[in-house]
Amino acid sequence: MPEPSITSRLQLSGFCFLLQILLIILFALFVRYSPERSPGLDSQELNCSWRNRDLGLQPPRSWDVHLQPLLGFGLLVTFLARYRLGSVAISILVVAFVIQWAVLIQGFLYSFQNGKIVVGAQSMVSANLCTMAVLISTGAVLGRINPVQTLLMTLLEVTIFTLNEFILLSLMGVRDSGGSLTVHTFGAYFGLMVSRILHQPRMDGMQEEQDKGHQADGFAVAGTIYLWIFWPSFISAPTFCGTTEPWAVLNTHFSLAASTLATFVLSPILHEEGTLWMVQLQDATLASVAMMGMAGEMLVTPFGALTAGFLAGLVPLLGSRFLMPFLRSRLKIQDTCGIHNIHGLPGVLGTLLGTLLAALATADAYGDRLQVVFPEVAQGTRTATGQGLLQLCALPLTLLLATLGGCLTGEAVPVLGRCRVPRCR
Amino acid sequence: MPEPSITSRLQLSGFCFLLQILLIILFALFVRYSPERSPGLDSQELNCSWRNRDLGLQPPRSWDVHLQPLLGFGLLVTFLARYRLGSVAISILVVAFVIQWAVLIQGFLYSFQNGKIVVGAQSMVSANLCTMAVLISTGAVLGRINPVQTLLMTLLEVTIFTLNEFILLSLMGVRDSGGSLTVHTFGAYFGLMVSRILHQPRMDGMQEEQDKGHQADGFAVAGTIYLWIFWPSFISAPTFCGTTEPWAVLNTHFSLAASTLATFVLSPILHEEGTLWMVQLQDATLASVAMMGMAGEMLVTPFGALTAGFLAGLVPLLGSRFLMPFLRSRLKIQDTCGIHNIHGLPGVLGTLLGTLLAALATADAYGDRLQVVFPEVAQGTRTATGQGLLQLCALPLTLLLATLGGCLTGEAVPVLGRCRVPRCR
Amino acid sequence: MPEPSITSRLQLSGFCFLLQILLIILFALFVRYSPERSPGLDSQELNCSWRNRDLGLQPPRSWDVHLQPLLGFGLLVTFLARYRLGSVAISILVVAFVIQWAVLIQGFLYSFQNGKIVVGAQSMVSANLCTMAVLISTGAVLGRINPVQTLLMTLLEVTIFTLNEFILLSLMGVRDSGGSLTVHTFGAYFGLMVSRILHQPRMDGMQEEQDKGHQADGFAVAGTIYLWIFWPSFISAPTFCGTTEPWAVLNTHFSLAASTLATFVLSPILHEEGTLWMVQLQDATLASVAMMGMAGEMLVTPFGALTAGFLAGLVPLLGSRFLMPFLRSRLKIQDTCGIHNIHGLPGVLGTLLGTLLAALATADAYGDRLQVVFPEVAQGTRTATGQGLLQLCALPLTLLLATLGGCLTGEAVPVLGRCRVPRCR
Repeated sequence: MPEPSITSRLQLSGFCFLLQILLIILFALFVRYSPERSPGLDSQELNCSWRNRDLGLQPPRSWDVHLQPLLGFGLLVTFLARYRLGSVAISILVVAFVIQWAVLIQGFLYSFQNGKIVVGAQSMVSANLCTMAVLISTGAVLGRINPVQTLLMTLLEVTIFTLNEFILLSLMGVRDSGGSLTVHTFGAYFGLMVSRILHQPRMDGMQEEQDKGHQADGFAVAGTIYLWIFWPSFISAPTFCGTTEPWAVLNTHFSLAASTLATFVLSPILHEEGTLWMVQLQDATLASVAMMGMAGEMLVTPFGALTAGFLAGLVPLLGSRFLMPFLRSRLKIQDTCGIHNIHGLPGVLGTLLGTLLAALATADAYGDRLQVVFPEVAQGTRTATGQGLLQLCALPLTLLLATLGGCLTGEAVPVLGRCRVPRCR
Repeated sequence: MPEPSITSRLQLSGFCFLLQILLIILFALFVRYSPERSPGLDSQELNCSWRNRDLGLQPPRSWDVHLQPLLGFGLLVTFLARYRLGSVAISILVVAFVIQWAVLIQGFLYSFQNGKIVVGAQSMVSANLCTMAVLISTGAVLGRINPVQTLLMTLLEVTIFTLNEFILLSLMGVRDSGGSLTVHTFGAYFGLMVSRILHQPRMDGMQEEQDKGHQADGFAVAGTIYLWIFWPSFISAPTFCGTTEPWAVLNTHFSLAASTLATFVLSPILHEEGTLWMVQLQDATLASVAMMGMAGEMLVTPFGALTAGFLAGLVPLLGSRFLMPFLRSRLKIQDTCGIHNIHGLPGVLGTLLGTLLAALATADAYGDRLQVVFPEVAQGTRTATGQGLLQLCALPLTLLLATLGGCLTGEAVPVLGRCRVPRCR
Repeated sequence: MPEPSITSRLQLSGFCFLLQILLIILFALFVRYSPERSPGLDSQELNCSWRNRDLGLQPPRSWDVHLQPLLGFGLLVTFLARYRLGSVAISILVVAFVIQWAVLIQGFLYSFQNGKIVVGAQSMVSANLCTMAVLISTGAVLGRINPVQTLLMTLLEVTIFTLNEFILLSLMGVRDSGGSLTVHTFGAYFGLMVSRILHQPRMDGMQEEQDKGHQADGFAVAGTIYLWIFWPSFISAPTFCGTTEPWAVLNTHFSLAASTLATFVLSPILHEEGTLWMVQLQDATLASVAMMGMAGEMLVTPFGALTAGFLAGLVPLLGSRFLMPFLRSRLKIQDTCGIHNIHGLPGVLGTLLGTLLAALATADAYGDRLQVVFPEVAQGTRTATGQGLLQLCALPLTLLLATLGGCLTGEAVPVLGRCRVPRCR
């Protein structure tokens, strides 16, 4: 944080105190543990569209629950290459607040029983998917709003994110275990819309800061290796039910490998100097992860994952070269960390791929997997084409909610936050 | 290590050689593997007070055993922000020695059968809890004693630590799975007492060195993220038995989140410049972990974890501002890494909270958990109040053993180690 | 990468594009997922010599499959201390290519059924062991061949590695779960042979570059801690079957601890200044891991692991002092990253230790483990001495294949790669 004044420091202190006291009171009034692991609230069901219980599937393994909460922090590791260290402190504050707030909001929607929210391990997993979306959005406006404004934006985004997720996963029965749509696409377009509303004519300073971030090759190495090691297993843990092959893990791995080669195909042509390799590799890795979020568990053949990963790896490079200048000059959207190319576009592409695969799903190709991935189709209450149509409808709905929510938040932020950072509107 | 002379280098080399040869001989004489996984020595029992075997509980999962040994190293990661890199080499030496020595000493007390120590996965887990306590103590005297003296201190501390742990967990049946009392409190007060005995009038150089450590914000980021990702699952893995909800994981997560907000509440008031954010966040994270060590598995409601974490997050900031100058000037205790505020005080507070919760434990609120957390209470051989009294008695006992052991060690270190580092007494 | 020219950049781009398109076509033609987890292709069997299925052993746990793929990347973390960051980008490219290519080549040998390769989680595990061998070889020639040449070398090495592994594990029934022989020894001598063929008279520049790598103490700290935390569990995960004690984990831990003390015994004598501690500690850690690869699951007593680890810890220090100058001047082998001392020699020593232990294996000492470790001996189709002889024969065979393969590759690399890096022959 760039030397905040006394007033802004006291404002931050007071706002944090207020939020934490409010959260403690709300938790004391509404939130309870269940002494037994409640069978109706397994982490399985949260990501397996709430209906697998009836199918007699195996319960999720305990380490899913233990290690899942690192999802949000995994993303944070990759931010080190782009953010300055001061911004990381704010990101950790955001994570700490989102975890508490999301448990509360999601609890009201998903597990409100007899006037009490019953939380368990699955609440933490769900809150962490929300954390990822918020961190992606933060990437678009980083350095332009102060910590108090960031907390306000977080407060609103968590609420809208949960609403969108509830409509998609619970009401419509859309399948999006890795969050191509609910996390990457929602987070990116929400953040871009906030950035659009907060637009200010002169941002020469920002441009300079963004370039400085590119020097952090060491952090990008750490982020890329971290993503390769942990991401495929953790993003696909919820989809790993019983005796089926872990397609999501394998597809994500193949996709990561192909996106790396894509970077080495395109980068030597687009860039003259070879210094930005690691940050570009990290971008390609993130893009292929966003691409595989929905389609990972649906892809029947590995060569599909290779092709999709290769295309996903091209998106951030092409986007930052040709699309970002257009966004900046015409649409007046400043995208500090390039989230549109890394999360937005690959998320949309991944959703379209998932839609296609859902529409083509047959019992022959899927075998027992069909019950896990598309329970309604396996039970015969919905056709594969119907599932595909639902997945397709979810895309404009998410874009609409993200854009409207971003507008609202962008208008609200300057009103309450008092814009202490000089650059802010 | 600051350029050691030839004599001190040969002394270090010879002492390490002697210790390793001694350990190999003792291992050859006494230590054996069991070909089968011995049912009476499961990692479960070590942390579930040695009696769960009779209750027919599920055995611990294999990954507990696999991943537990990172506990000590997890703490080491957080030291990078405070220690210089040279000191990390000494810390790794300490860990390597403690693992071998603790397996031996703990084996004599816990699993000595027919003249042989039978070691297994649970020995490694137990040795790693010991490693944590030694690393905490080392933090108080870092940079003031040379490597050979550090090894001597380690030798003595492991012995006293194991004695204290054996009295508490095995003889008294105290419940402290996360080590609030046996690890954090013992380690901190042992180290502070050694530091008190080794006091020397002029320490201006030390002060300077400590401040230099504060610049390592990058390492603090790594340490904080590491703690958030891995600590809650690993510290609470032994308490995760069968079908009960993982309360310890959830409580630790809520506590971490609240301590982060506490840092953002207090730090802007106490500190004018905002540069030390990350080190302060890491301190708050460690403090809330120490706080939740005993109480994590006992807290019935999440809002209790939020409140406790919030208070724990305030302790390191208040302590370093108001308590450390008092310790330094009046009690003549130099605390190089601030372990009193980060491990000592939160550990004591966590023990008091755990005592209160043990005394209030009822079968209604705990359900099946009661058998796991307080087997004696569940079996009716002990009342909840009795358990609470035992937990309370364990605190002065641990403080007494830590203080006496620290005195003894502080007197022994200068005699044998010959104090090659000029600053040492 | 040191500012490549336009031609070499286009060459790299084109070669990557060609390889990826070729891989996608081959995958489309031959590679399929199986909808069910096929019982005949479990990850268990890949490392348990393909016969445990008949013994009714428990299936491997799911997290083996999930977390195994980090093996190759774990090694990559340790390279950061020695390589420049630019080289890490090339290493990631190598990993991304090897994973795809090894799945294909190993699939043709191991799981080619009805004209299709059926891939699953075990293919990814196996491909990652291959990645480790390739990364080790790359360490010998790093900075002397350009990226395109590295890819060509990788293409050939994966093929020869898979052939050697197939002969050893499947045809001969050699037991080498941690890869002392198939990974560490093969990788090291293959790389050294390529380095010998590519020898060029003047390499003063390289020497300078190698010294520069030694300054990266911070990265060495990260690498050492990473190895301590993750390596023992992951290298030994395939050997952890059912109810037997995890000897491989425990032996690797004891070996790591002893090798650390060995470094502190020898380093103060050999080196005057104490600045290179962390890189030396990391080398000792890697050497003891290579030593325990084969013998880890066979060692009956912990003191054997301590002794072996202590000796392994001495090898890199003695080797870099006395052996490397000899290799460089007489045999004209340049070893950029010292892989002969870190992987080659400890791998050979580990193989000899494993041979001895296999020949001495008795049903008394092993109990139920005998079925897991040496299924043929347990079934009576082979004597322990016979198993020992087979393990011994595997060593010269591997050395022969590695040397011949390295010769071939060393001759092929300059022909196709056009040697754009000025230093290359």
